[in-house]
Amino acid sequence: MTCTVTVLGATGSIGRSTADLLDQHRDRFRVAAVAGGKDAAALARVARELGAGFAALSDPDGGPALRDALAGSGIACGAGPEAVIEAASRDADLVVAAVSGAAGLTPTHAAIRLGRTVALANKESLVCAGDAFMRDAKRYGARILPMDSEHNALAQAIGEGRIDDITRMTITASGGPFRTAPRERIAAASAAEAAAHPTWSMGMKINIDSATLMNKGLELVEAHHLFSIDAARLDVVVHPQSIVHGLVTWRDGAVTAGLAMPDMRVPIAHCLGIGDRLSIARGRPVDLAATGSLTFERPDEERFPCLRIARAALAAGGAQPTVMNAANEIAVAAFIAGRIGFYDIAALVERACEDFAARFPAAPADVAEALAIDDEVRRWSTRALAA
Amino acid sequence: MTCTVTVLGATGSIGRSTADLLDQHRDRFRVAAVAGGKDAAALARVARELGAGFAALSDPDGGPALRDALAGSGIACGAGPEAVIEAASRDADLVVAAVSGAAGLTPTHAAIRLGRTVALANKESLVCAGDAFMRDAKRYGARILPMDSEHNALAQAIGEGRIDDITRMTITASGGPFRTAPRERIAAASAAEAAAHPTWSMGMKINIDSATLMNKGLELVEAHHLFSIDAARLDVVVHPQSIVHGLVTWRDGAVTAGLAMPDMRVPIAHCLGIGDRLSIARGRPVDLAATGSLTFERPDEERFPCLRIARAALAAGGAQPTVMNAANEIAVAAFIAGRIGFYDIAALVERACEDFAARFPAAPADVAEALAIDDEVRRWSTRALAA
Repeated sequence: MTCTVTVLGATGSIGRSTADLLDQHRDRFRVAAVAGGKDAAALARVARELGAGFAALSDPDGGPALRDALAGSGIACGAGPEAVIEAASRDADLVVAAVSGAAGLTPTHAAIRLGRTVALANKESLVCAGDAFMRDAKRYGARILPMDSEHNALAQAIGEGRIDDITRMTITASGGPFRTAPRERIAAASAAEAAAHPTWSMGMKINIDSATLMNKGLELVEAHHLFSIDAARLDVVVHPQSIVHGLVTWRDGAVTAGLAMPDMRVPIAHCLGIGDRLSIARGRPVDLAATGSLTFERPDEERFPCLRIARAALAAGGAQPTVMNAANEIAVAAFIAGRIGFYDIAALVERACEDFAARFPAAPADVAEALAIDDEVRRWSTRALAA
Repeated sequence: MTCTVTVLGATGSIGRSTADLLDQHRDRFRVAAVAGGKDAAALARVARELGAGFAALSDPDGGPALRDALAGSGIACGAGPEAVIEAASRDADLVVAAVSGAAGLTPTHAAIRLGRTVALANKESLVCAGDAFMRDAKRYGARILPMDSEHNALAQAIGEGRIDDITRMTITASGGPFRTAPRERIAAASAAEAAAHPTWSMGMKINIDSATLMNKGLELVEAHHLFSIDAARLDVVVHPQSIVHGLVTWRDGAVTAGLAMPDMRVPIAHCLGIGDRLSIARGRPVDLAATGSLTFERPDEERFPCLRIARAALAAGGAQPTVMNAANEIAVAAFIAGRIGFYDIAALVERACEDFAARFPAAPADVAEALAIDDEVRRWSTRALAA
């Protein structure tokens, strides 16, 4: 039985790994549509490789270049945000939502509203507008498959179990490049040092988030929404080997865990299989005897205040996670540009959360409201950093 | 909704832990029957404590003592193997089969034939007569819940997954007290040294089996039957902390694992819950940050030949596991009595497997045949040791 797949964010890191797996299993998949950001040549390449029915570039000016690059392929195409929504709306058994950042919200939400099964790699959908996404997923009968390694591991560890029977849900953190560094050393770190991720190969922004542990904070917010679990039962443990990704503690004392080598193709393959697991070629299997030792330690919220701030934002609820995420994006960009120091990221995010607490008390009711809050906090953050 | 439970082997270690949990959850359970071996006073105590409807002692001479001990309680009782079968046959939602040794086969099989849900802690049922047990479970619609910590962890890690999608199923071994000892040191070990188990508190026989790693060999045979998985996909890894008990590797590279502190109440509670998890009072939760490090290493089949012999017996199939188990029981008893050395256990088991390979090529067709083979190999082993 063929499964029809659409890939939003097909030219990014997750998108390319997804394309690799779809290509390995051509007998099982047909590709309805692919969407990318600005790189017409890269999008045309993946569209041709996968035999996609439609290709959409979010850059409205990219239309001619994409058309040229697809000439003779018979693949329909379009450019601009509406074209991406068209891609998201094409009939498909599975929509891989791997657009990064706030730009992913609208097309992902379009797929949710059509009741699609959505493999979710776009963190912002749940961090910025989690209540709205989960409510609409329920309303429109959409199923969300978590594609992040941690949440995918949790989903596998939960299986058919009941969330009420869970006393603790734990995600692991590699600890980032500064796991063992003293605070003064971290305070003086450059973006290049912070971006040197020990176990995963990812983009710059997410590498910085791993170094501050904000990445885990965002993942706690995602877990809260994905699994309808309260903040008090969510936990983070540092695990430098990045082999155990998530653990679920049940009320009877049993723990189930999800493991995999740090390779995004594993959670992607799990999502693409939708219950009928794919086999992966060229993957390194987990071999615990070869690994020898798995170590665990408590995160240090003194040296990594972003985790504390994120926990507080999640506990406070309302629009706090939306505010936190927007301020963090601006702060991280400024850190990457060398304009602020490592601990200025946490300071700005904390100030934003405080400043907007009264202004935006409620969780965004829909994607438009989430994007409006996101926009306002970004502008505030930019001004705050310029002051 | 009340769940009616019968406990076979109620006075043993598993039985007492089961009684402790039933007692903690009196609102959920009603006890139909309890059965024990020779200790009438202990059986009467647990029968009274749990308000059992019927108590059976397998010792045929224990009837009067049991009747006296239960005087005035209104609890019916009987003595002898038929009384234990009557206990196993009383109407119950769950039969806990925790009689140890070959004596557990007949009453456990009686519950299977009645289509009961059986929480299986009796290893011998599957090791000696696995084909017959699994065939009859299917035929009579009995459900088997594994109560061993390793198999229980595997069952939780498998969840609703398909065995066909599994590329490897791994059980862990603590490695026993001789994990790091040189061969000459192990060769000279006394039974008291061998019985000093590092993580679990269990009986003498099973402690010796842990020291030889035969325990893991028996568990591989059990896993083969319980999960209908071939020997080639079954694996053992040494894990001295005994916190991870079983791991399942899926074809997409994901691994799910079952963990718990080394406390038999966890798998027992999981079985008693039958999908509706109990909470456990007074249990120590898994806390990986507090544990710090989980280590893994390959088992050394040179120093621990019983594991190699068990793998070979499982791969050969037929009656080889039945033969192996019987010879091992006699050899371990002789070792405990100080009559043979540590490596003589493996030597006797290997000789028995070789000697009986042609004589008993086929797997026992039923419990009677399994018991007949068991008896013959025990007599042969006793003679071999006396020679």
